[in-house]
Amino acid sequence: MTNNEKLDFILTRSSVRRFSSSLTPEETETLLRAAMSAPTAMDYQPWHFVVVNDNAVKDRLRSFLPYAKMINENCTGIVVCGDISLYEEVSKRDGEDNTLYWVEDCSAASENLLLAAHALGLGAVWTGIFPLESRISKLRETLSLPENIVPLNLILAGHPAASGRVKDKFNKSKIHYEKF
Amino acid sequence: MTNNEKLDFILTRSSVRRFSSSLTPEETETLLRAAMSAPTAMDYQPWHFVVVNDNAVKDRLRSFLPYAKMINENCTGIVVCGDISLYEEVSKRDGEDNTLYWVEDCSAASENLLLAAHALGLGAVWTGIFPLESRISKLRETLSLPENIVPLNLILAGHPAASGRVKDKFNKSKIHYEKF
Repeated sequence: MTNNEKLDFILTRSSVRRFSSSLTPEETETLLRAAMSAPTAMDYQPWHFVVVNDNAVKDRLRSFLPYAKMINENCTGIVVCGDISLYEEVSKRDGEDNTLYWVEDCSAASENLLLAAHALGLGAVWTGIFPLESRISKLRETLSLPENIVPLNLILAGHPAASGRVKDKFNKSKIHYEKF
Repeated sequence: MTNNEKLDFILTRSSVRRFSSSLTPEETETLLRAAMSAPTAMDYQPWHFVVVNDNAVKDRLRSFLPYAKMINENCTGIVVCGDISLYEEVSKRDGEDNTLYWVEDCSAASENLLLAAHALGLGAVWTGIFPLESRISKLRETLSLPENIVPLNLILAGHPAASGRVKDKFNKSKIHYEKF
């Protein structure tokens, strides 16, 4: 712990995988407000969020997402997606494919969402979808995603039934100076 | 503003592009500690960070990174990179390419870094590198990056000379329920 409360707040976030109840509509909106405050390349804000509270939809997600098998009636699912159609014009202009900026922007938004859950005393965990085509295609079908909308992850969030384990992952060997 | 200080902290981060002095070594380490507290797929922690304070290196970066032209002696550059070699084995096992998880993990780490700057009263801005091959190749040369290390972005950070503009990007039309 440091002598800076906000820094400690960042450092003490952990992944929560057991929940006692799902998010209220107000909590959901608050988490998404924080997500949408992330910076984005060229201010494109490529994100879309599909909120899942319906148990039949959760059952389907659980059937093909091994790492999200803990999704149940006691938590809310939020699928963070990116709109890749936004990059067509600028990629043409630059002569280079800018499309993958959506992954960066939506990942920054996802981290904000996880931190906002921590701020509210809620719990959340990020489970991976992109870049695995097998998961993307099934999610596309389950959530009726249009061609230009790609799912990045499925975040589970809710009121925590057990606290997560805070990990100290600081590693000086990952820091280089002036060159690698 | 809300009645939750930590949430407000997330919502009031903004991109700072003008600096009066670069980071101290302690500040640099604090920002990187926050970066390394982000969650990562399969706990791979694929990140590496190249800290740039040398003015000759900054001159080189400025020469080919149009959106980072404000890098100068009054700020510190931090290039967030990912080690793509970590994904070889699991991609083979899964029969699908997991490599791009590094982009998600390093983006979450970058957002933590920006928020940590905000926590310390410092300023920071994310400038894009990946997926643009023209920028990646020049950065690879400038920073002597090995083949398996891919640069994601160049974050400029330092003591702010001007505050950034906080944007309200909340947009209800980006929120969908049960399906898109």
